[in-house]
Amino acid sequence: MRKILIIGAGKSSSYLIKYLLDKSTSDNLHITIGDLNLENAKKLVGNHSNASVVYLDVFDADSRTAAIKKADIVVSMLPARFHIEAAKDCIAYKKHMVTASYVSEEMKALDEEAKANSLVFMNEIGVDPGIDHMSAMQVIDRIRDNGGKMILFESFTGGLVAPESDNNLWNYKFTWNPRNVVTAGQGGAAKFLQENQFKYIPYNRLFRRTEFLDIDNYGRFEAYANRDSLKYQHVYGLDSIKTLYRGTMRRVGFSRAWNVFVQLGMTDDSYTIDDSENMSYRDFVNAFLPYSPTDSVELKFRHALKIDQDDIVWDKFLELDIFSGTKMVELKKATPAQILQKILMDSWTLNNDDKDMIVMYHKFGYELNGKQHQIDATMVVVGEDQTYTAMAKTVGLPVAMATLDILNGKIKTPGVQIPITKEVYNPILEELTEYGIAFTEKEVEYLGYNPLNI
Amino acid sequence: MRKILIIGAGKSSSYLIKYLLDKSTSDNLHITIGDLNLENAKKLVGNHSNASVVYLDVFDADSRTAAIKKADIVVSMLPARFHIEAAKDCIAYKKHMVTASYVSEEMKALDEEAKANSLVFMNEIGVDPGIDHMSAMQVIDRIRDNGGKMILFESFTGGLVAPESDNNLWNYKFTWNPRNVVTAGQGGAAKFLQENQFKYIPYNRLFRRTEFLDIDNYGRFEAYANRDSLKYQHVYGLDSIKTLYRGTMRRVGFSRAWNVFVQLGMTDDSYTIDDSENMSYRDFVNAFLPYSPTDSVELKFRHALKIDQDDIVWDKFLELDIFSGTKMVELKKATPAQILQKILMDSWTLNNDDKDMIVMYHKFGYELNGKQHQIDATMVVVGEDQTYTAMAKTVGLPVAMATLDILNGKIKTPGVQIPITKEVYNPILEELTEYGIAFTEKEVEYLGYNPLNI
Repeated sequence: MRKILIIGAGKSSSYLIKYLLDKSTSDNLHITIGDLNLENAKKLVGNHSNASVVYLDVFDADSRTAAIKKADIVVSMLPARFHIEAAKDCIAYKKHMVTASYVSEEMKALDEEAKANSLVFMNEIGVDPGIDHMSAMQVIDRIRDNGGKMILFESFTGGLVAPESDNNLWNYKFTWNPRNVVTAGQGGAAKFLQENQFKYIPYNRLFRRTEFLDIDNYGRFEAYANRDSLKYQHVYGLDSIKTLYRGTMRRVGFSRAWNVFVQLGMTDDSYTIDDSENMSYRDFVNAFLPYSPTDSVELKFRHALKIDQDDIVWDKFLELDIFSGTKMVELKKATPAQILQKILMDSWTLNNDDKDMIVMYHKFGYELNGKQHQIDATMVVVGEDQTYTAMAKTVGLPVAMATLDILNGKIKTPGVQIPITKEVYNPILEELTEYGIAFTEKEVEYLGYNPLNI
Repeated sequence: MRKILIIGAGKSSSYLIKYLLDKSTSDNLHITIGDLNLENAKKLVGNHSNASVVYLDVFDADSRTAAIKKADIVVSMLPARFHIEAAKDCIAYKKHMVTASYVSEEMKALDEEAKANSLVFMNEIGVDPGIDHMSAMQVIDRIRDNGGKMILFESFTGGLVAPESDNNLWNYKFTWNPRNVVTAGQGGAAKFLQENQFKYIPYNRLFRRTEFLDIDNYGRFEAYANRDSLKYQHVYGLDSIKTLYRGTMRRVGFSRAWNVFVQLGMTDDSYTIDDSENMSYRDFVNAFLPYSPTDSVELKFRHALKIDQDDIVWDKFLELDIFSGTKMVELKKATPAQILQKILMDSWTLNNDDKDMIVMYHKFGYELNGKQHQIDATMVVVGEDQTYTAMAKTVGLPVAMATLDILNGKIKTPGVQIPITKEVYNPILEELTEYGIAFTEKEVEYLGYNPLNI
């Protein structure tokens, strides 16, 4: 039996575990789940004879090394900052490793040792990062192999609520970490390339410089810029590209309404409000508006942001009940962002029968034989339920496939890496189509910059 | 002779030195100026027989302690972060000390030792901080002594160009550190108290929530909130006050135009622009606007901020020549704030015959015998020339007067302190009136909050 150790049985492990268990007999696999919480891990493996569950505290060297020594390959599904101890053990005991997380500086530093020991340390092989890398590089490599020259690459991903569960005015529910949604875009200007010019968008303008994106059968979306669109410019081999933009997708109208929170300062995570515990939602909103002995919080809010009462954006705030004088914040010394998150969770938490959706949109602009061309590639994945979510599927399946491909020697180039080589993306993208994770490509007129939208 | 050591003969030392030299014979004073740059110090003292100039490097213990040992009192006019070494020597050699800077944690920590040695360590005795403390506390103490209860305190200061030199559309020139002007308000939400409610204004709204202030003979000003209006709440004894607000004064219209830079991200000091050296002013502005093959930078700028071409705010940007394609940034790897500062210095640097102006405005709201009252107090000081500026006068004279009052035993309460006691503010405010630095008080109707403005 080939032994796979999965550390962390969190939200995104359901499909990962199911995939490997389904293959365990045919492929001669034993899967060990190591977690602090044995209950949840046991639920995911059931009574499967090829699986076992062990207590594993990644900060306890004894339980960690004991489990890693016994494995042939280690998959860490922990938050990114917890990988490094397991990674060092993988070097020490010569085990391959797979994560869905961004490559940290510490992880990168293990590259030489991984190569010296012929170990594959595969990272960023979830959905974003992961499927975005693979699907982008497959098309980029194809364009180049045909003699084309890349002039534009735009890439967008969104974690959203599925159309059948999309029943609020924001067309949005929390399908992943709510905190990341509330603080999205903070920490510095967004930077990207547009027709050879560096462009910068400050946080306070980020949600007003959106781009529209249409996906057949799914309608219109919008996207706002990610912090650093240029992160993968060199890695993707796009050093001389003219336009390079990465963004986050929402349904149209989300950003315009969200911008109201940004403008008022309600997403600020840098200071705490002393008396937050005893504030009502209404008090919280009022803290960002001038005092008035006569005007209501509602009127001051509309006046400050110049919102007409028959503007749909106004109904979005009423729907959230942010003007309630009876609902209490109940969080001690909370930041505005923490309070806003609590208010939003009242409205945007998935119901038991809600489904999530992952959407991805790539635009590839290139020159071939003196002509400009563009390929648009789109992917939509809808979840099955709240365990087998689109997020878990698109994160877990590529991780699982990479794990098996490494065990089977299909992926063998050693070192700390991300999935941008044909050796990695070709077998995995092909297998993903069997699970309904596939891109639809369209040749479109080359649009280049999008002056009406960005 | 009583020996006064002044460390640092910078911009704000002219009046300080002149005042002490003028009194040196009658009051039996010898003034030593210690500086790295002997030329400038010599210019300020001329051939005065009661003055001498010595080379002093505050980081060189030998030259520093040699000078401090010989003095009876030490005045440090260095930037705030450089005081501490001299302050420690003052404790060691038992010398009084005076600075115009905010009390640092390190300075505060010397309080016990200063008291044990009967030394007065007077700080924050320039204009802001300084004259603001003294003039505010004099009125606050008077109101309390008469049995009144403070319910509102608002305080505003501005360093501006004098009306006779006010000849640009912004009604503004740099009369002090330009960098502080460009980055003003950054680093977190402004916090203040309004009718018992904490209020927060994020940076992106700061310059749109201004308050108007009228000063007889000088017309209308506006003010935006300082970062922390509550800093002196406890020190001033205003723990139960309802409204507490501190702000910075500008001429009306400055903030609305400045907000355009804020909105576009041109005041950001947190990242550098790679190719800044070779950018024109036009390229710099364009980096914050979307690409367009057809629209001019001017049109994109007006469109982004919704500025009509016949709006006076538009002329303000034209006046700065920010759309020039030939004027070059010429700064290597500069932040947006650094580049903007350079552009503004082209237009906002004082001419040789320009004069500056300091304006201050306090509002005191109080209850007495069941009735609400308000006193408004204003001060305007206009500079004489570019050496004897209003800034140098309002910073240097209180420092000089405090120094002499300490030497003469008029100010004798020991410890690290700021000028908020009658012992300190009464003699100094009285003497300042002889130099034209005086407040005009008016009883006005109690307005309280100012719903139309803030």
